[in-house]
Amino acid sequence: MSHEAFAPPSFTFDHTPSGFRFGAVRAGIKPSGKPDFACVSAVEGTSAAAVFTSNRMVAAPVLVGRDHLRRSGGRTRFVAVNAGNANCATGEQGIEACLTVCKAAAKEFSCSIEEVIPSSTGIIGVPLPAEKLVAALPAIAAQLGESSAHVQQFAEAILTTDTRAKISSLQIDIGGKPVRLFGVAKGAGMIAPQLTPHATMLVYIFTDAQIEAIDLQNFLNEAIEPTFNCISIDGDTSTNDTVLLLASGTSGVSITHAAHQEGSKAFSRALLKICGSLARQVVEDGEGAGHVIELAIEGASSAEDARRIARSIANSPLVKTAFAGCDPNWGRILAAAGYSGAPIYPGRTSIWIGHLPVCRNGRAAQDFDKNKVHEAMLQRTVHVRIDLDMGHAACEFLTCDLTAEYIRINAEYST
Amino acid sequence: MSHEAFAPPSFTFDHTPSGFRFGAVRAGIKPSGKPDFACVSAVEGTSAAAVFTSNRMVAAPVLVGRDHLRRSGGRTRFVAVNAGNANCATGEQGIEACLTVCKAAAKEFSCSIEEVIPSSTGIIGVPLPAEKLVAALPAIAAQLGESSAHVQQFAEAILTTDTRAKISSLQIDIGGKPVRLFGVAKGAGMIAPQLTPHATMLVYIFTDAQIEAIDLQNFLNEAIEPTFNCISIDGDTSTNDTVLLLASGTSGVSITHAAHQEGSKAFSRALLKICGSLARQVVEDGEGAGHVIELAIEGASSAEDARRIARSIANSPLVKTAFAGCDPNWGRILAAAGYSGAPIYPGRTSIWIGHLPVCRNGRAAQDFDKNKVHEAMLQRTVHVRIDLDMGHAACEFLTCDLTAEYIRINAEYST
Repeated sequence: MSHEAFAPPSFTFDHTPSGFRFGAVRAGIKPSGKPDFACVSAVEGTSAAAVFTSNRMVAAPVLVGRDHLRRSGGRTRFVAVNAGNANCATGEQGIEACLTVCKAAAKEFSCSIEEVIPSSTGIIGVPLPAEKLVAALPAIAAQLGESSAHVQQFAEAILTTDTRAKISSLQIDIGGKPVRLFGVAKGAGMIAPQLTPHATMLVYIFTDAQIEAIDLQNFLNEAIEPTFNCISIDGDTSTNDTVLLLASGTSGVSITHAAHQEGSKAFSRALLKICGSLARQVVEDGEGAGHVIELAIEGASSAEDARRIARSIANSPLVKTAFAGCDPNWGRILAAAGYSGAPIYPGRTSIWIGHLPVCRNGRAAQDFDKNKVHEAMLQRTVHVRIDLDMGHAACEFLTCDLTAEYIRINAEYST
Repeated sequence: MSHEAFAPPSFTFDHTPSGFRFGAVRAGIKPSGKPDFACVSAVEGTSAAAVFTSNRMVAAPVLVGRDHLRRSGGRTRFVAVNAGNANCATGEQGIEACLTVCKAAAKEFSCSIEEVIPSSTGIIGVPLPAEKLVAALPAIAAQLGESSAHVQQFAEAILTTDTRAKISSLQIDIGGKPVRLFGVAKGAGMIAPQLTPHATMLVYIFTDAQIEAIDLQNFLNEAIEPTFNCISIDGDTSTNDTVLLLASGTSGVSITHAAHQEGSKAFSRALLKICGSLARQVVEDGEGAGHVIELAIEGASSAEDARRIARSIANSPLVKTAFAGCDPNWGRILAAAGYSGAPIYPGRTSIWIGHLPVCRNGRAAQDFDKNKVHEAMLQRTVHVRIDLDMGHAACEFLTCDLTAEYIRINAEYST
């Protein structure tokens, strides 16, 4: 089983969907002085769908964004993202600050406040300086554009501890007409999204297909499960995770979620590819990560059990440090599978690392060659297959190793 | 609220209960060549109770030990512990190796095989060389003794990545007669015990009280919940965790679990102290730990919710690294509480670090003094109180920070 869900579509800026203009400026929130306020303006008629974190501690922009989508009936004209401050654990004042920015953006860009979706990422518990963002809106208005440079600016301004921008694009053909999909993500730490259809990973996906909000939400709900909900960097589910999908309709190609509809399957597959690619890019850029670990759980009793076992292995510090050390210590994998809460029969469980057998039926594989497996683990990406031999459910899950660099990044005083 | 459950009773070897003889030898399992085979011989009539790991992947000695206790009706005469090899994920061969050692010990020490409790700790997935342990039994027999030197030898031979022995003792007075309790533990990594009454932390507790096996089990079940089941070093629940409690009866003081019985309360309290002290010693010696974090969860809806929130915070890499860096990043604590799965109202949650307010009702406390809190976090032990303001349930939980040294210990090739 290859990691299909996470296969990267080739990227080109030629696939930027029409109907969207991008921009970013310095609002003075990031202490580094880098651009920290990124916005997207969408044409009238753009429909929207979103999924947010299932953390009970949710940031003000998540609360406001969810409310705006509900009140607008899935219509969005403007997206305002600031980095450097999560506007989380900021109380009523945080909500007010968020609404102040939305209101000013609505005025500047001639839309209703419900058509503005706010996002924030950065430190938790520090009041958001709304006035800095409001003051930066005219500069944003002056420089919005559709060029690849504009898109690149947007993708970079939303980063925090990320070392690089994360972008994915695809063009599909429906009834002879081109439909473009384009996604941008940020996130390198506090990554273990548990998105619910009602995620500090921020993802923005754009398409020029014409899709009603309710259909758009159904497409998104399906696409996030095997992608963003199947990755973990550190097991810490953020308070701000958000995936927003906007459809401008400017391609003139109308798509519904109905399975029989011509474009439905093609769009669904394309969206899955964009989500998978962005999810992989997030893990690839995991804080301090030296290795990407592709977990393939097979033979589980249920998809839920498969996911639970994968998450338990992905979040085990002992498994993660073994991969950091290229140590074929498969016993740690088996132990983490054992405490996931899902049933396993250890005597039936088999494990392959880098496609080499390490454990068969709960004990060392007869042909387990420690040195060969160690060699395979030196690769940047290591594939791990676990066959539970209990049923037919499976899952693919992406994670990374745990290194001293992760500790350095997160233990430094005053983040 | 002080961490009462984890308060250390003063330790003295004078409290070693009578009826037990201790010893340890080099059997050649640890590559270091240090003593690695530790045994205890108990007088006839000794009753036993035990709790083991709830990991679905269980080691051979856990399977065998559980079976022996059931078949003997809670009678134990000999405990055989090896370090350097966990005898886990070793298949049928592992069970046979374990039984071979038990059988030879039963012969050497003139008891039945069911009266022998085996324990193993060390690497997973490597066959146990039973013949080395069997060959070492006569040397064990020749050197068993009751002196403090013998006890110290035992406590040291069971260690793996531990940096020091963990011992706790107490003498109580029941009806004018002395009853002694004495416990020994090992464990520094793969520590997140989830012991079930039917836990690679190994704990051996001895008393000379006279207690029937069923009562002994009840006492133990109660004592482990607020102690060993409320600690975590790395969140990795081991395949070999075991807490064994033996009562020799040689004090002549008979105790039952019945609440009204004279000695019941005193014994229960004493056992809780021994377990709490050993649990704290395990966390104090956590792999690479620079800080011990005392979590006190208050105002929870239920004890289960309190425990769940505590465990989520204790196992969060971002919380653990913040403490490593003495960074008063309370937002990470709130975020970890938010994704535990237990309900919280962020707007009602307040947090104190080192008894200083950091968060009140879900946002930064007005008197939050970052520098003062940073100072408080420089202490080796840091107290963290979280008041959920939802109900009256509470829990105390002990954990430690996550440092680059933990990574070094666990990422080194070939552990």
